[in-house]
Amino acid sequence: MLQIKDTGWSEKEKAVAQASLKLAREREIASLMLEVSHQANGMTTLDDLWKLHDFLSARRYDIEGKYEDEYSVLIFVLARLVKEGWLLAEELKGLEEDKLTKVTVLARM
Amino acid sequence: MLQIKDTGWSEKEKAVAQASLKLAREREIASLMLEVSHQANGMTTLDDLWKLHDFLSARRYDIEGKYEDEYSVLIFVLARLVKEGWLLAEELKGLEEDKLTKVTVLARM
Repeated sequence: MLQIKDTGWSEKEKAVAQASLKLAREREIASLMLEVSHQANGMTTLDDLWKLHDFLSARRYDIEGKYEDEYSVLIFVLARLVKEGWLLAEELKGLEEDKLTKVTVLARM
Repeated sequence: MLQIKDTGWSEKEKAVAQASLKLAREREIASLMLEVSHQANGMTTLDDLWKLHDFLSARRYDIEGKYEDEYSVLIFVLARLVKEGWLLAEELKGLEEDKLTKVTVLARM
């Protein structure tokens, strides 16, 4: 059975995880800003404008909740980022083999 | 005393008022879309992005509430649009002198 909780994080692993979160966040934000500029430049109607607003509301809610760095949920956070394409599993090199496996398995779900 | 309520609107006046609302709304929306494109193209940080989101939330709330065409409040609506610069008082030609005066007086408040 896949045990997720109660996994210890060494200082080195914490550093790897924090750097990965930062990297994924930067990528996601850069991509979002590009998408927003693109949408903003393509607007022709008020509907387009409110669609942009709805899009931003949803993305803000998502991003503000996603990058949690509580160690108890970090495996899930990293797995989600891999699944969404903001991180490559290879970029998590430095984590214990066990954690890497969990991330990879969860990312495929 | 300035009497606002219980003013009758002739068909001709209704048509003038509706056309003015439409015109003001189109101007305000065009200006908003320009401003949003401008802000979107100037974004460099996530803060800028969330500022754009806050700006859109406020403008949406404002615009969705503003263009009321209930005849009981229309004098106020038109006065506000004149005050904000989306309409010129001259563009309300066709309304009774009495209504024009009320709009002009209210717009100066």
